[in-house]
Order: sequence, then structure tokens, then C-alpha cells
Amino acid sequence: MLILISNDDGIHAPGINSLRASLEPLGDVFVVAPDRPRSATGLGITIHKPLRVEDVTFADSKTRGYAVNGTPSDCVKIAIQALLPVKPDIVVSGINLGPNLGTDVLYSGTVSAALEGVINDVPAIAVSLASWDAPDFGYAADFTARLVRVVLDKGLPEETLLNVNIPAFDRSKKPPRINVTRLGKRRYENIFEKRLDPRGKTYYWMGGEILDVQADPGTDINSVKKGEISITPLLFDVTDHQFINLIKGWNLNNIL
Amino acid sequence: MLILISNDDGIHAPGINSLRASLEPLGDVFVVAPDRPRSATGLGITIHKPLRVEDVTFADSKTRGYAVNGTPSDCVKIAIQALLPVKPDIVVSGINLGPNLGTDVLYSGTVSAALEGVINDVPAIAVSLASWDAPDFGYAADFTARLVRVVLDKGLPEETLLNVNIPAFDRSKKPPRINVTRLGKRRYENIFEKRLDPRGKTYYWMGGEILDVQADPGTDINSVKKGEISITPLLFDVTDHQFINLIKGWNLNNIL
Repeated sequence: MLILISNDDGIHAPGINSLRASLEPLGDVFVVAPDRPRSATGLGITIHKPLRVEDVTFADSKTRGYAVNGTPSDCVKIAIQALLPVKPDIVVSGINLGPNLGTDVLYSGTVSAALEGVINDVPAIAVSLASWDAPDFGYAADFTARLVRVVLDKGLPEETLLNVNIPAFDRSKKPPRINVTRLGKRRYENIFEKRLDPRGKTYYWMGGEILDVQADPGTDINSVKKGEISITPLLFDVTDHQFINLIKGWNLNNIL
Repeated sequence: MLILISNDDGIHAPGINSLRASLEPLGDVFVVAPDRPRSATGLGITIHKPLRVEDVTFADSKTRGYAVNGTPSDCVKIAIQALLPVKPDIVVSGINLGPNLGTDVLYSGTVSAALEGVINDVPAIAVSLASWDAPDFGYAADFTARLVRVVLDKGLPEETLLNVNIPAFDRSKKPPRINVTRLGKRRYENIFEKRLDPRGKTYYWMGGEILDVQADPGTDINSVKKGEISITPLLFDVTDHQFINLIKGWNLNNIL
């Protein structure tokens, strides 16, 4: 059993460290992750410049780590194609600091690392902790280890990954419920702050307030708001199959 | 009528210039594009550092251009949210030098710029020229202008964009046929070249040979190979709806 771990918060982030510790009892673990935070890189890859790979060791284990000066997608690609001795049995990405819900998954480096696994025919799970302050990755990491066991036992469809969001919750109480969800939709408002630099030149900084456009029961957003663990199966077959026939009716050959 | 043009080859690329010239007769055109080539950035966005926007003028027209030191997705976001006087009627991304087919669309900056339009509720088209040497963007740009007219007339479903690939063809002959397609699948082999730098340190450079895993009739890959124009409607609703019920049968609440 070979498990490949990656993330987008960087190889030294607490979330990936907890994940590694919880997955080590399951088999051989390799950590191949960005050398620094690379959030919101989507499925971006590095083709115009070289990648460097540095060995990383962990104080409490013999697991091998590699820090890559690229995106999460670069990390999973180079791990599978060049660094690992054999193809991994599963890619686990995370644990992200902060949720990855709704439309945000399209931008997420955490989800993209998992997607890169799927593109390389390796089953994959992306895990995020829906908490920003005083995050406790312990439960999320242990839960993920149990979920990995189930996934390896049951199998996933060839091109499907699981996107898991674990809410912040009080560990002295009963653990939350799991809800298998669909993606909701988020939008951001007042995205760009226009500012002046110390020399009086304009710059823009992306911020924005979240607007949950679609967050009804059954969505990942709704589920996490209620304190449940959300598991959303994602399939990146993005052809709009239904619309193909409609376009055919447009007789586009007339505009050639 | 306000048309927003972007791309991933950069604001000074020949493809975006041809596109601008062909779309100007249709209405007011704004060009907001990366200040340099930003291929394969996927839907990556810039959140950890500021964005700069520089005015760009074009020798042959009064169209306003803005060069942004960000990704294609940044460009469309900042255009819609901060730079344009009103919401555009359509986003047209391209014309990319080289095709965007099959799995590659997930990495494509050209397609991502169009997707960013759709995420902001603006209909969008991504256009690529499936040619590398001596590219002639003229026909592709004129064809795109005619297609934009049809799309604005017929409308697109709320979350669907069109991904257009135009093959290289001999303009002295009859123009190619249009085929409305689904995405094929591509994979890359021998992706990473491992090399030594002048100081004897290892680096990796991503390259790779294309392997068309799924290129049967009806796919975009097949269509472009046959010299046809491929139009693929893309819908980024990536929930795997079918698999939701299967996972529910796993009784995951047992592993809480």
C-alpha cells in the first residue's frame, strides 16, 4: 500500500503533518507538496520553467518528503511520474486550513491535487477543515484515515474523487453526522480593493465577501453550516452533453 | 453591446490582436489580458499579492486595453468587478496558439478565462487555433465574430461556455466543416525530463508526449484531426450526481 499525500498550504503546514501521522499506520506514505503556500492555483501547472525538488525529513517518522517549487498539481504529477517507486494506491490532499465548498473547488489547490491523481488514474480524496481559528486537525486526520480504508475497500469510479469538508466542532460532544452532498454555489462581492502604494501608484488586491448563491439542503455549503461532515463526489467530465444536440440545431455550417 | 476579450498568451500575442480586430465591428470592445504569457494556469487566481493594471493602446484602433500581472482568471475577474463601465455581454477568450482539447481544457488558461466569465454570469467562448507553425489567425478571428453573433442571438444555458478549436487548413480550399463535439481524453507520457544545471544540481522540466486516450468520432480531438472546426459545450457542474446515492449506501456514519 502506497499513499501519496499533497496539499496547497505547503509541506510545512500543520494540516498535512496531522494527515501524514494518521495515514502512516495504513502503509508506505510519501509526502510531495509545495515548498510554500500555493492556495487558489486551480489546476495550474509549471511548463515554462524548471521545477526543483528538495528532500524533507520529519522529526517523528521515517516517511519521505519532497518539497517542490510548484503548484499542487505539479507535485502530484512529478510524484507519480518521476519520484515514487511505484504508482500510489491513493492520493490524499490536505488537510486544508479552511473549507473548499461550492464554486470554490474549481479554484482550490487542495482539490486540484486530488484531481491530478484522478487524471493519472489514481483514486483521490481532498480534505479540508472548515475552521480558521485554533484549528484542530486531529479528529479530521483520524477520520480521513478511516475514510481512506473504506475507499480502498469499496473503490471509486474511475474518474471520481471525494471532496471532504469537516466542520469545526466541540470534541467533547458527539461527533457530527456525515452528509453526502452536491456542490452548492458561492460568489464573491466587492472583490477588488483599489489602493495606492507608498509611491502613489494604484494596485488592486483580491478580497471579497462570500455570497452563498446556492446553499439549500443537500449542498456541501448547507451541510458544513449545520456542523456536518460533507462528502461530495466530484467528476470532472465537463462536456455539457445535453446542450450538444441543441447546438447542432443552430446549423452553424452556415457561418463557415 | 460590450465585448470583453482576454487570453492566456498575453495581451501582445498575435491571436488576441486578430480577435480584437474582428470583434470591433460588433460593438464596444475591451481587452483585459495578462501582461505576459500565462499558459496552463488553470483557474488559478492571485490572492496573496497585489495586481497591477497598465493601460495598453493599439496602433490601429481606439479600443482600450489593460495588461494585468495576473492569470487569465484574474483578468476576467478584475475586468468585470473593477475595470469595465458595465457588465460585458460576452467574454471571448483567445485566440490561443495551439489547440485546447480533451483533458487539456482543465489546465487551459484560455478556457479558464471563459469559465471565469460564466462564473460571473456572462456568456463566454474560448477559441483556439490548432496550429503551431505559421499560424494564420485571420479566418479563425472572422469565424469567431460570426459565432459571437449567433451566440448572442440564440443564447447559451446559464452555466455553459463554448470551447472552439479551429484546425489549420488551406484557405484556398473550401472551409472545414463544424462538428459539435464532446471532450476526448489526453494523457502525457514521459512528462518530466530530469537534468543537471550548470552547478550540477538536479532540476526537472515538464514536457511529455501526448497520448490520445479517447479520441473516437464525436470527440473534439477526433474532429480537429479530421480538419473540422470543433465546438464543445462545457458545463463545470462537477458534482458526480450518480455516485451520491452509491456512497450513501456505504453507511459512513459508522466511521465517525
